[in-house]
Amino acid sequence: MPKVRITRRLHFSAAHRLAHPDRSDEENRRAFGDCANPNWHGHNYELEVTVGGPVDPESGYVMDLKDLKEIVRERVVDDLDHRNLNLDVPWLKGVNPTTENLVVQIWERLAEHIPEPAALDRVVLWETPRHRVEYGGE
Amino acid sequence: MPKVRITRRLHFSAAHRLAHPDRSDEENRRAFGDCANPNWHGHNYELEVTVGGPVDPESGYVMDLKDLKEIVRERVVDDLDHRNLNLDVPWLKGVNPTTENLVVQIWERLAEHIPEPAALDRVVLWETPRHRVEYGGE
Amino acid sequence: MPKVRITRRLHFSAAHRLAHPDRSDEENRRAFGDCANPNWHGHNYELEVTVGGPVDPESGYVMDLKDLKEIVRERVVDDLDHRNLNLDVPWLKGVNPTTENLVVQIWERLAEHIPEPAALDRVVLWETPRHRVEYGGE
Amino acid sequence: MPKVRITRRLHFSAAHRLAHPDRSDEENRRAFGDCANPNWHGHNYELEVTVGGPVDPESGYVMDLKDLKEIVRERVVDDLDHRNLNLDVPWLKGVNPTTENLVVQIWERLAEHIPEPAALDRVVLWETPRHRVEYGGE
Amino acid sequence: MPKVRITRRLHFSAAHRLAHPDRSDEENRRAFGDCANPNWHGHNYELEVTVGGPVDPESGYVMDLKDLKEIVRERVVDDLDHRNLNLDVPWLKGVNPTTENLVVQIWERLAEHIPEPAALDRVVLWETPRHRVEYGGE
Amino acid sequence: MPKVRITRRLHFSAAHRLAHPDRSDEENRRAFGDCANPNWHGHNYELEVTVGGPVDPESGYVMDLKDLKEIVRERVVDDLDHRNLNLDVPWLKGVNPTTENLVVQIWERLAEHIPEPAALDRVVLWETPRHRVEYGGE
Repeated sequence: MPKVRITRRLHFSAAHRLAHPDRSDEENRRAFGDCANPNWHGHNYELEVTVGGPVDPESGYVMDLKDLKEIVRERVVDDLDHRNLNLDVPWLKGVNPTTENLVVQIWERLAEHIPEPAALDRVVLWETPRHRVEYGGE
Repeated sequence: MPKVRITRRLHFSAAHRLAHPDRSDEENRRAFGDCANPNWHGHNYELEVTVGGPVDPESGYVMDLKDLKEIVRERVVDDLDHRNLNLDVPWLKGVNPTTENLVVQIWERLAEHIPEPAALDRVVLWETPRHRVEYGGE
Repeated sequence: MPKVRITRRLHFSAAHRLAHPDRSDEENRRAFGDCANPNWHGHNYELEVTVGGPVDPESGYVMDLKDLKEIVRERVVDDLDHRNLNLDVPWLKGVNPTTENLVVQIWERLAEHIPEPAALDRVVLWETPRHRVEYGGE
Repeated sequence: MPKVRITRRLHFSAAHRLAHPDRSDEENRRAFGDCANPNWHGHNYELEVTVGGPVDPESGYVMDLKDLKEIVRERVVDDLDHRNLNLDVPWLKGVNPTTENLVVQIWERLAEHIPEPAALDRVVLWETPRHRVEYGGE
Repeated sequence: MPKVRITRRLHFSAAHRLAHPDRSDEENRRAFGDCANPNWHGHNYELEVTVGGPVDPESGYVMDLKDLKEIVRERVVDDLDHRNLNLDVPWLKGVNPTTENLVVQIWERLAEHIPEPAALDRVVLWETPRHRVEYGGE
Repeated sequence: MPKVRITRRLHFSAAHRLAHPDRSDEENRRAFGDCANPNWHGHNYELEVTVGGPVDPESGYVMDLKDLKEIVRERVVDDLDHRNLNLDVPWLKGVNPTTENLVVQIWERLAEHIPEPAALDRVVLWETPRHRVEYGGE
């Protein structure tokens, strides 16, 4: 049975600042520049979730794309969209919201919720059209 | 002499919330929904500035695109990028930062700074890839 | 009060064929080439609806973008998405679904449903990323 | 000799419906929702074909991109463009045209036609800008 | 009869340099910076040609898009693609190939070749995804 | 510690021609068609540089994206932007500038300049939006 990967792209808009939680505003400004602005800044994030697995001969699907979209919405996007990533999201408490840290946390939110035999393959998060980060659970 | 329009696209990332300055959080939440989140959200804004005028026979330019980029950077983008549009920008004080209000304020910042015989023709501001606003000084 | 234009982009996927309703398959094939394939073909259409008007000083909006989206969804997109434009849409009966004809019909569906003082300004329909059609009610 | 991958993107527009060939319209509607509309719908598909291999020191190519384009056109795109994927394509007869099934069939059409020492590496098919499927022959 | 505008997008890749034909390399370097590099540089240009007119009730077209594409190819793109805009194009001899000058010349090549009652409405030329120029015959 | 990949996209505009340095214009025209035009042509290249490594628990970064951008600018983009790839670039002397050869040379310019424990993972070069080449050091 051929192994195929399907990818669904979703978006969310959020505020954040880069700041190590144990550091002063001045230290954070030195480490993260404008990204540490204490009054926040924000982005239109684009999130790509890739799931891989055998193609089911009955449905012709790896998994129903609508189900995948629902899982990502419920477990990730609804918590992040129009929110402040430093203040509003329980599962990001204490996390400095760099794109690297976000993509790992998003992976953790999703990996065990993809119905077998499909499996989470890769999460890609675009902070801007020129900057993206990718994680495959390694 | 032919009249031509030139457009330069720039971007900035900013935090904001939609809120009428004289209203309570609850009234603003009713009027603006998630966009009124008191902890802010944010966007990657794309800004298009269009300038029209005759083509100078010496240079073959309406105006030097590098000059246009510098004017927009100095008077608009440097003030907005990685900032909070409700808190950090002197020329937006007291303005509810809807895309409509932003595009009018950006026009006001630029209109008198385009060197003649060129003139500002249109400002377009994309809040997301699916939502944009356009103002021509009317 | 400044006059601003706001644009919302939506999409739908549909099947169609180009065919004059009173002509034979062979005549239509001569007139419309592959686009007349009797077994249909289809597109991911992108629809841009632009509304213009004064900015309301209370809300900072020309009109609430969510309301605009709802109007376009209810009156246009829900009728067209995952449908056959020649067979499934009551308000397209007897219309040869060229992009030109579609954009005029979509204008007619929307023009009287934009709440004053805003008014429909322009409808743009992309049949492919290289081909679009635009109508302003003229 | 360095091993490089080259990718060519092509597009086609087609009608289809998702339907298990042995099921009733009602069963298919339950399984595939709007995608099972008996009157069809359609898409602008984007197809990316990736070929990998050593860079030929004479030409500086993995393979001539024009040849790759010709192979994909002749063996895939010319059969699918402006066609109905359920009715018009001999090599898709009996296949439920989900994006997963399409990408595997396209791989089979191409894999043995890439001139050595290059080899087919990956086929990606975008059904919409937010949904893509990828197959590497595994 | 409604008046509609149709737009076709084409592309070409070309080399050029910005240089006033009567000036020295040094003067041109002062006026045009890196764009005056005597060894040339180049771009992937995107060209959008818009034609407006009444919708023909027989065909449902303003004009056949394939015809429009052929006219633009024959009169513009075939002369510019994979060429040097300063050296290789008879109708650009003596023209400093700024985007402004190019778009006016392209207009002149097309305006009289659009079959009535349609008429050329606008030519837009993108030199990069962040810089475009637009001409409407004014 | 999770291993993550970060990607930064940059662009440059350059002239080139495809030509084997030891061949006549006629032989090159036969091998490379229009791409061998002795008067050059050019492109807007998009360059994606991907770096992989563990996420530093202090910074939350694989590496500082601004540092990555600076390295790619200094060692690659500043040498190529607004230049002729056959004539102006010391580290491309004698190289036929196919996209395959370019991507390998760019890899060589960058691989040893990524600060450990991060490492260069992949370089992708888009010659046009429909043609890209990818190299991972294999």
